[in-house]
Amino acid sequence: MSILIKDATAITREGKAKKCDVLIEGNTISRASPGINASAEHKINASGKLLLPGFANTHAHTAMSLLRGYADDMELHKWLKERIWPVEKKMNAQSVHAGAMLGICEMIKSGTTSFSDMYFQMDSVAKAVSDSGMRSMLGYGMVDLGDEGKREKELKEGERFAREWNGKEEGRISTCIAPHSPITCSSELLQSSAQIANKLNCKIHLHLSETREELFQIMQKTNKRPVDYLDSLGFLSPRVLAAHCVWISAQEAVLLGKKGVSISHCPVSNMKLAGGGAAPLPELMGAGCTISLGTDGAASNNSLSMFEEMKSCSLLQKHARWDAEVIKAQEAFAFATKGGAKALGINAGEITPGKLADLILLDAKAVNLQPAHNLISNIVYSAHAGNVMDVIIDGKLIMQERKILSFDEEKVIEKAENEAEKIC
Amino acid sequence: MSILIKDATAITREGKAKKCDVLIEGNTISRASPGINASAEHKINASGKLLLPGFANTHAHTAMSLLRGYADDMELHKWLKERIWPVEKKMNAQSVHAGAMLGICEMIKSGTTSFSDMYFQMDSVAKAVSDSGMRSMLGYGMVDLGDEGKREKELKEGERFAREWNGKEEGRISTCIAPHSPITCSSELLQSSAQIANKLNCKIHLHLSETREELFQIMQKTNKRPVDYLDSLGFLSPRVLAAHCVWISAQEAVLLGKKGVSISHCPVSNMKLAGGGAAPLPELMGAGCTISLGTDGAASNNSLSMFEEMKSCSLLQKHARWDAEVIKAQEAFAFATKGGAKALGINAGEITPGKLADLILLDAKAVNLQPAHNLISNIVYSAHAGNVMDVIIDGKLIMQERKILSFDEEKVIEKAENEAEKIC
Repeated sequence: MSILIKDATAITREGKAKKCDVLIEGNTISRASPGINASAEHKINASGKLLLPGFANTHAHTAMSLLRGYADDMELHKWLKERIWPVEKKMNAQSVHAGAMLGICEMIKSGTTSFSDMYFQMDSVAKAVSDSGMRSMLGYGMVDLGDEGKREKELKEGERFAREWNGKEEGRISTCIAPHSPITCSSELLQSSAQIANKLNCKIHLHLSETREELFQIMQKTNKRPVDYLDSLGFLSPRVLAAHCVWISAQEAVLLGKKGVSISHCPVSNMKLAGGGAAPLPELMGAGCTISLGTDGAASNNSLSMFEEMKSCSLLQKHARWDAEVIKAQEAFAFATKGGAKALGINAGEITPGKLADLILLDAKAVNLQPAHNLISNIVYSAHAGNVMDVIIDGKLIMQERKILSFDEEKVIEKAENEAEKIC
Repeated sequence: MSILIKDATAITREGKAKKCDVLIEGNTISRASPGINASAEHKINASGKLLLPGFANTHAHTAMSLLRGYADDMELHKWLKERIWPVEKKMNAQSVHAGAMLGICEMIKSGTTSFSDMYFQMDSVAKAVSDSGMRSMLGYGMVDLGDEGKREKELKEGERFAREWNGKEEGRISTCIAPHSPITCSSELLQSSAQIANKLNCKIHLHLSETREELFQIMQKTNKRPVDYLDSLGFLSPRVLAAHCVWISAQEAVLLGKKGVSISHCPVSNMKLAGGGAAPLPELMGAGCTISLGTDGAASNNSLSMFEEMKSCSLLQKHARWDAEVIKAQEAFAFATKGGAKALGINAGEITPGKLADLILLDAKAVNLQPAHNLISNIVYSAHAGNVMDVIIDGKLIMQERKILSFDEEKVIEKAENEAEKIC
């Protein structure tokens, strides 16, 4: 399969428009420059459209899209105990597949071309990725709460899932080892996770310092701050993708940077669940961490749009630091594209020959994107999901003029509605 | 003119769906209930669509849409001095009209049916409102910086504009007296403003306590906090719509409530310009103030979407107060509809017989609005501008299936681009 994108408007580093054609061969960008004349099986007239790398959403629980709007405006622990956990107990392979398809459909329609997921019934999520044409890095979320019997089972399932699905769909699916968090996992589970990831040569995904309570619990239990505790277990390495990292000290940020850890920053979820802090992004950037953005699940956001995440990322930092110059549009955009791809170990996030063809086209003529003083600013601060017109993932046209080609959107919505009704 | 909306999905107080038909006669909702059979000149099949009151954006500088993306990620005073003011000096009647049309077009496409504007060249803004079918409350922004000669001129122009346009377009345009702020206006200008507003029986719109610097300046000059200072001038009354109100003490909130002042809260602009604080909404609500939402200008937001404003309002309060239960979806929605209409003195914001027919229809089948556990939550936390399908203002169909009927959207964008190029 080959695709030639003609007459698109790409964006310079300064946010200005430049004409660009792109030739895609197989799943890879083979050429990107103005005036490409080459034969291709499929030709896209991208005149009047902005060409961008697709977004990488590095922290999601896609199946939780079934719970969108089911429980809002509640304190985190009450929310979990009274609303989320009871419903999750009723979720089976079928409901997780339906929820994952709903979430993937929303992600595609808002320009996301890859995501990371940690949940249960992960075979269903992997099947949804397989069915939809999406790209993702998936891990089975392991929790032992210190129970040794549970630990063995969880590690077995985590490793089985990682082995079974890694590299599937010609590489569209990659897998990781996903111990849930330092408070829900024993030190043995965390150490075994790192060992399995070394053995399988894969990433590790976990929640880290999302709430202040978590910080206090770990300090009480280990007499160390969470990052120091993980380091003492030999857990930290460039394999690690740590979600949230809100309650991180400047010293912990330095250590995360030294160990090559990637961050999935989730500003909307953090604000909505009222954790109170703001992740120390400038310190984490200064320490050399790769920064990416995650929406978290739709139950705590309640959107999977990376446009909202980019804007909220910049707004939250500006607000929390009393500094309008912190996290510029260009930086938020890089987190959502290049940074996200790097965090997931995907060779994408830039419009450059040799990179995977994960690309999106926006309606350059949309009224909310006028005038075109700075296109990066317009994308980060002014665009919304409805501006995304076309989506290419792994060299395949997945959405054209807002119509999903790889599956039946109406059926996905119908199934999700039915499954949501069963469990809620 | 009469319109019958058939088979719409309206929303109960609890966020559940209920079937609803609406009959509009002239510019007013005459009936709202299921199963209306009446003859009407125009019939809208609203099956599969959510029916809501349109949003009121109570603080905008619409013409600043020309400057969207022109200057971002800058400290407020540098931003004003180096970028905004030099360009504003070049703006004339033609550019303000073009910018206002661009902003109005974006507002309609994101479900806003009325707005409040304070700027210069206000005849051009009024003409844009007249041309577009929009509803608004407009005021000429007066600034004297203590200069007596300037004061007389400003007051004359403020009163002329208010007299000339009030009630125009069969009441779609109302006017107000708009002294810019307590730091840019002398006490004499503020007092004269209140007197003129009494004489004309109209609202007063001003900026109040947006930044900490403003608070310090007024305390130094008057030995009073800004709200106490305004009260000492006899300025405060139910006529007043005060934008921002970030640096307000609990005592000031009580006084604002006692005087019946309405608030235009602008969370996105406040975060983007990094003022640092968060308006004390719970205290202002507790004091009995009418709360509404404003986007501020597109140069400091950079969007005019009230969906973003509702969500950011709730997120910022939850974040700042460490309380996930503060500003529930239902409250943010009320600020954007009922609260906004009340703040602008417009008899709208609810789907009730006797109210003005300012209504919008959303695509109920959009993937980002599934499932329908709670429709109010979906609108506040999950919807985006692209979900708005139809807009009715003052009983007239202004947008149908995302196509603007009352003016040529392409021409509006072309003119705005040309004018932006001239001044920037």
